Order: sequence, then C-alpha cells, then structure tokens
Amino acid sequence: MKSYTKIKDIPNLSETIKDAILLKMNPFEFQDLGKNKTLVMLFFNSSLRTRLSTEKAARNLGMEVMILNVNDAWQLEFEDGTIMNANTPEHIKEAAQVISQYADVIAVRAFSALKDKTRDESEYVLKSFKKYATVPIVNMESSTAHPLQALADATTISELTEKATPKVVLSWAPHPKALPQAVANSFVEMMQYLEVDLTITHPKGYELNKEITKETPINYDQEEALKDADFAYVKNWSSYNDYGTVLHQDENWMMTKAKLGNAKFMHCLPVRRNVVVEDAVLDSGQSVVIQQANNRTYAAQVVLKQILENL
Amino acid sequence: MKSYTKIKDIPNLSETIKDAILLKMNPFEFQDLGKNKTLVMLFFNSSLRTRLSTEKAARNLGMEVMILNVNDAWQLEFEDGTIMNANTPEHIKEAAQVISQYADVIAVRAFSALKDKTRDESEYVLKSFKKYATVPIVNMESSTAHPLQALADATTISELTEKATPKVVLSWAPHPKALPQAVANSFVEMMQYLEVDLTITHPKGYELNKEITKETPINYDQEEALKDADFAYVKNWSSYNDYGTVLHQDENWMMTKAKLGNAKFMHCLPVRRNVVVEDAVLDSGQSVVIQQANNRTYAAQVVLKQILENL
Amino acid sequence: MKSYTKIKDIPNLSETIKDAILLKMNPFEFQDLGKNKTLVMLFFNSSLRTRLSTEKAARNLGMEVMILNVNDAWQLEFEDGTIMNANTPEHIKEAAQVISQYADVIAVRAFSALKDKTRDESEYVLKSFKKYATVPIVNMESSTAHPLQALADATTISELTEKATPKVVLSWAPHPKALPQAVANSFVEMMQYLEVDLTITHPKGYELNKEITKETPINYDQEEALKDADFAYVKNWSSYNDYGTVLHQDENWMMTKAKLGNAKFMHCLPVRRNVVVEDAVLDSGQSVVIQQANNRTYAAQVVLKQILENL
Repeated sequence: MKSYTKIKDIPNLSETIKDAILLKMNPFEFQDLGKNKTLVMLFFNSSLRTRLSTEKAARNLGMEVMILNVNDAWQLEFEDGTIMNANTPEHIKEAAQVISQYADVIAVRAFSALKDKTRDESEYVLKSFKKYATVPIVNMESSTAHPLQALADATTISELTEKATPKVVLSWAPHPKALPQAVANSFVEMMQYLEVDLTITHPKGYELNKEITKETPINYDQEEALKDADFAYVKNWSSYNDYGTVLHQDENWMMTKAKLGNAKFMHCLPVRRNVVVEDAVLDSGQSVVIQQANNRTYAAQVVLKQILENL
Repeated sequence: MKSYTKIKDIPNLSETIKDAILLKMNPFEFQDLGKNKTLVMLFFNSSLRTRLSTEKAARNLGMEVMILNVNDAWQLEFEDGTIMNANTPEHIKEAAQVISQYADVIAVRAFSALKDKTRDESEYVLKSFKKYATVPIVNMESSTAHPLQALADATTISELTEKATPKVVLSWAPHPKALPQAVANSFVEMMQYLEVDLTITHPKGYELNKEITKETPINYDQEEALKDADFAYVKNWSSYNDYGTVLHQDENWMMTKAKLGNAKFMHCLPVRRNVVVEDAVLDSGQSVVIQQANNRTYAAQVVLKQILENL
Repeated sequence: MKSYTKIKDIPNLSETIKDAILLKMNPFEFQDLGKNKTLVMLFFNSSLRTRLSTEKAARNLGMEVMILNVNDAWQLEFEDGTIMNANTPEHIKEAAQVISQYADVIAVRAFSALKDKTRDESEYVLKSFKKYATVPIVNMESSTAHPLQALADATTISELTEKATPKVVLSWAPHPKALPQAVANSFVEMMQYLEVDLTITHPKGYELNKEITKETPINYDQEEALKDADFAYVKNWSSYNDYGTVLHQDENWMMTKAKLGNAKFMHCLPVRRNVVVEDAVLDSGQSVVIQQANNRTYAAQVVLKQILENL
C-alpha cells in the first residue's frame, strides 16, 4: 500500500483483514518495522477514537508520533494563484512539502463543512496533501470518506459473522445536527468490496451519492429492511441531494431493540443515546460498538504496516 | 494498587513514600516495567505540573503516553437515560470503555465547577470512569480530591522532617477567585494518615467538609495555630458550607515571614505572590515548593509502578 | 553550548554548520546521546515548522519530548514584586524552576506582541526563563530573535553556495499584518557571522535596529540591491522605529522572477503567495524554501546535540 485515502487503496481486502486480526492477537510483533520512522498526525477537526487508535497503532509498530492540531499552526490556503492577503498565511503547497520532510507518513483529518458540495467532493484538503506531500498519506476522515473506520467495521464483521454472506443493513438514524456522509459512504463501499448482502434504509430525501451506492438496494421501509439482518449499522447523515440539510429528525427512525431483532448493532461512535439508538440496544450484548472501536487500532496498524513495508 | 483515585487506595503509605524516594534517586530503574504499556492522560482542565510530572513519571517507567485534551474530542454526557439531543454527543459509558482499549492506565483531570455541591461530591466524572473503564484509573485532581499532590506533599514532609511527629499547619489564604477544596481535602486526609500533628486554620465560614476534617483541630487564630509549626501548608479554598463562595479576601491571612516563624513553607502551586504569600517567604530558604513540585514526578511514578506491578 | 538563545551562543559557526550537514546525512547516529533526557517545548504562540522540526530533532537524538501549549496551563506573571490578584496565577520564578525539574532542556517560543518596544527588547520571557530555569534554554523564536531559523538559513546557504563569499540580499516584502523583526534580526546577525557579502533593502522607515544591522549596507532601491545577488532572503517586518506599525504595503516590493535574477529565493515560511512573492518564484527551481525548512531539523539537532554533550 502506498497511501490509504480510500477503500480501493487496499490491494487485497481479505488478506488485510486477516492481517489486522493477527495484529490484534500480537500487536507488538512488528515493533522494529517503524523504528526511526515518524507519523505526523494533522487534525483540522475533533477526534477521540481516530486520534488515540491511530497513535496507538503507530507506536505498536515502533514509530514515533508527532501530533499537530492545525489550529496551533497556521490557517492553510488551498486555492492556486490566490493573492494571499487575507486569513490564510500558509499555502498547502509549502505545508505539505515541508511536513513531508519531518514525516515518513502523514495522516490527515479534515471534515466536510457541508457548505459546498462540489468543493467537498473534490476532496481538496486530502487531494492537496496527496498532490504536494512526498510521503504516503492516510485519511483519518475526509469530506466524503472515512476508510480507516470502514476497515475496522469490515474487520469486526469478519470476526463476528457466522455466515458466508451475512445480511448487513445500513440504517439512517435521526440526529440534532447536520453530519457528513463520510462514514456511510465508506461503509457502503467497504461492504460492496466484502462478501455481504447489503441493504440501505433511510427516509426519502436521504439518498447517498448514487455513484457510491450504485446497485445497492435501498428500502425506505426500515422494519422491512432490517428483517433477518445479521448486522445493523446505524448512522445519521445529512441530505446529500439537498446538500448538508437536516430534512427532519424523525424519531421513529431511532434504532430500538424491537427493530433490531437478532442483528448485531454497529455504530462508529460517538453515538447519541436515545436519539440514534435506545439505551436498551447499546447496553445489550447485541451491541458490538466497543469491539468496533477496538478494531480501529488494528485497522490503522495494518494500514501503517503495509505502508511501512512499501517505503 | 489497582487504581489511585483517593488517598485510601495506598495500601501502605510509609512503604510507598520510601519507594517514591528511591525512585527519585534512581528514576530509570524500572524502565522495563512499562514496556508496551500505555498511559492515556485526559484533561478536562488546565494543568502544568500534573501534566508534565505524570507524563515524565510514565516515561521514566518506559510507558508510552497519549495525551488528550477533552476539548479536542467530544463533550461527554454523564447522566444515565438522557435523550442526548443537546450539547453532549458522547456518553461516558462508551468513552470510558473505548479509551480502556487503547490504554493500560487512564489518568483523568476534571475540576469541580463549584456550582453543584451534591454533584461534585458524587465525583461523577471520576466515578464514571472508574465504573465504565476496564483499566486502572489515576486521579489527576477531581472535584473533591487531589491525591497525587497529597502524596508528593507527604513525600516532601518525610524527606524534610527532623522530628518523629512534626507539627503541620494547613492555613487558608486569600485569593481573588473561587477555588475548589480538592487540594486541602487531600492534604488533610493524607496528614491524618501520616504521623504528624495537624492543625487547620482559616477564617470562620471556611470550614472544610467535616467528614474529611473529622477530629482535626481547627483554630480560627492563624498566628496561634502557626506557633512552633514545622510545616505550614498554605492554600486558598472557597467556602464549603456556602458552596463555592468567596466570603471575603482578608489580606491579613496572607502568609508572611513573620507569621511563618521557623516553619517550612509549602504550597501546591501555582501560587499568587503577595496575595497568598509574600515574596519574602517564597524567595527564602524556608520555601520548599520547588522540591514539592519535583516530588510530583516520583509520587506519580510510584503510583504508576504499583499499578503496573498489579496489571 | 550551554543554551541557545542567540546567535552568539554558537561557539564555532563553521564547525556547527558542518555538524548539521553531517547529522542530515546520518540523523540517527547519536541516538544514545539523548537517552533518558527530556526536552520540554513550551509554546506561547503558533508553530508548524519550529514545533515539528525541533520535536523531530530531539527524537532523532533519542530524547523524550513533552510539549505544553502555555494556554493549556496558567498565564504567567513576569514582573517582580507584583501583587498577583489579576489574570496571572503563576509567576515565572516558580514555573521555570518547576519545569526545570521535569526537563533536561527547555525550548520556548514567545513572540513579540509589538506593543511595547522596551519590554520586547528586554526579552523578558526568554531572559526570565534563562534566569530562573536550572537547565539549558533553547529559543524557538523570541521577541527579537529566531536563532534556530538563522542557523538553518546559514546551513542552507553553506550547502548551496558555489562562491567563497556569496552576495546575500535581505529584502523587505509587503504583508497585510504587522510582523515582528525577529527573523530579519537573526538573519542579519547570522550573515554578519558567516562569510557573505550582505546587503539589506527595504523602503524608508523600515530600518531594523541599528545595533543589529551595524555597518551592513542598506539600499533603498530594491532592484539595485538585488543586482548579481546569489541569495535573496525575502521577509516582511513591521517598522522598528515607529514600533510595530505597518507603514504601507507597497506591492512593488513583492519579489518577482524578474527582480530575482539568478539568485536563490529564501524565506522562513509561512509565506503569503502573491503578496510577499509571486507564484512564479516559489514554483521555480530557484526557490530553496523547502530545503531551508528541512534544515530546521538539523539546525535544532546540532544545537541539542551540543547542549547534550555539555550537560
């Protein structure tokens, strides 16, 4: 692997998942691989799991980690040819080249602001780093994708499934704030790559990008969609078509024990209890969200391992 | 030791202090103990000494350290059963369980807001971490206690005392802002545990929690209280009874060289010069605040050592 | 070297530059030198290059690094004898002594606020750390100086020059905000120390401190000054005489390809494109700003190495 900015950067998914599970059993096995190698983690946005698990993963491999909240440095300019006389004292061209000299791998988290669909879809932050940096780039959630999360999700399903082709349902849930589609997008792409039977369910108007969902069936009836599900991945996202809008917060779409049936409950966290999902689900043995969060470490670790092996 | 959230978690105080002093003489002796172990430090509030000394202590033991300012992650919800549709996107139940998977020990700093006595006394932040985390918890100052500070204080007194039972006076001091009782509480509890003759002095109205002070004598006459003291621990706190209130800022209670007599001057720092204590005291050889601050490292290190030995 | 707060702390510049270039070729050669040694980095201000390169340098030498944004701790008081009843809860006397006990070297970044020339010139932050700390101090940019930058600059010129005495021009550039003179000051002092033919060019009113520029020729005609230059170091600074004022933002002073001639273009970064310098310069092979930024690591590393060797 050269960089990990999108699902398709994984050369062999089943091998990679197997490797992640092996790393989980023996996290310090490749401690020499990262010796004298530095991961620089850049945060444009808040993070708990991504930050701690990626740092942990790098240290498990013996890497040094340097963390920079971009707010502690300079606001970055991403446009070409600008007269930079306003609020952005540093251009990404310099920043990415410079940081590349202090890093062997750069990991970047930069959310969508949900204001400019075209700009978000251009993935200008991530793509600019990829263009100007001279070292591999890892996506710690970008405008439209969260591939480290999706790899942890796939690993979790692989660990837990008792079927060759489990039924997986991605179910929209209500939320008080407008959230990006990144997690949902990457989960869909990852499930299309994995051997599962995927269905998406959400209220009308919450259709994800058709170029991502492709032929994946969409069912507007949540209960029907969830029938006989093995895994229910619940997640809010704001409207893609009416970009960044909260069309409604229909409480009926909250995940309940009744709707869940015998499925395992998945969520990327943080999760708003009794808004996205009722306590009874999260506090039951059907919830695998903590295992999912744990797998964030090994998803990041297998990615860094494959990158280090290719340096 | 399994966790260190309160003084009474120390199984054997005199042994622990002896160990701290040994670590001070040879800080890198147990460098293998923390190998492949990670301390996650979580800050809800400002910190200088606690942050640097605890990180140093962990590194002296060979641990990895990951630091998270909670403001860089998500606001946490601590109530059970809440419909989380407001400002707290993540519940402590998930956060504590998740972080436990990235950490071998979790250290938490969460001050009192001095607004809700019952809530503060419930120690809901610390207790929630203890309840939901699956790894040991270290208290880096909570609503009502600062046991790492108190252990450093006890170590300092042990190093310096020339008597079997030194006279120790805890003296209130004026301060422009309302401060928690945490440091004073833990100091009192620690001194009750140590072989010292403890007196508390403060203006009327500044009585600490009676359940903590117990039979410790209180003298409202500062000069009388300080007579023949070996150690004067000076500290401001806001009213406990009229919770969180600054009743007055009586300048006469500032510690002076004249009042101090031959006692050693102690303070947890930061200290407001010429408000809490006059320059002449701090700049004299009787002040041991720098030594106290140094002992923060070895207090934290002995705690982490005992926790690591019990993992 | 005992501390590195100013250019003149370098005992032997040509040896030091040679050492920096050797470290660049073999950055991990002295990995045992920093074993069990801790660098504490204190930031009063924003930083990207200085932060990452200095942390990298310390880690290359095997040091532990602890980073503190001073805003995460307490506001510091620097005046003697103050009654500290306002916004500064901690005095530098305590802070510097305390941090010295957690650190083997302390690095400090504290910019000028450009409001009080006398106070800035007293270098009260840096000098207070030097006065009260009991360990070596490294200047990561102070009110009037940025000697780590200047050492990286000198290293870059040494690497690139084809002449025994290259012509170096420091050229003022326009900028929307008032910036300190620190980088320009240190560059001038460093060039006076190095074997170069230095000229300064800026609009009238932008004269730097005469005690720094000394006999260095100043030419108010930028084109004439740049004639036959081998290196053009471009940088904005606010007025020194009319302290901290932006007298004007004359666009004609922006560096262009035409003005640059055959000179190498240098800048400390971050740089405002098309304000300080046009894209055509930065995107050409004449720009050496990325190499300069890379040399920040080895400048910091040679300084830390010399300090560690003297501990």
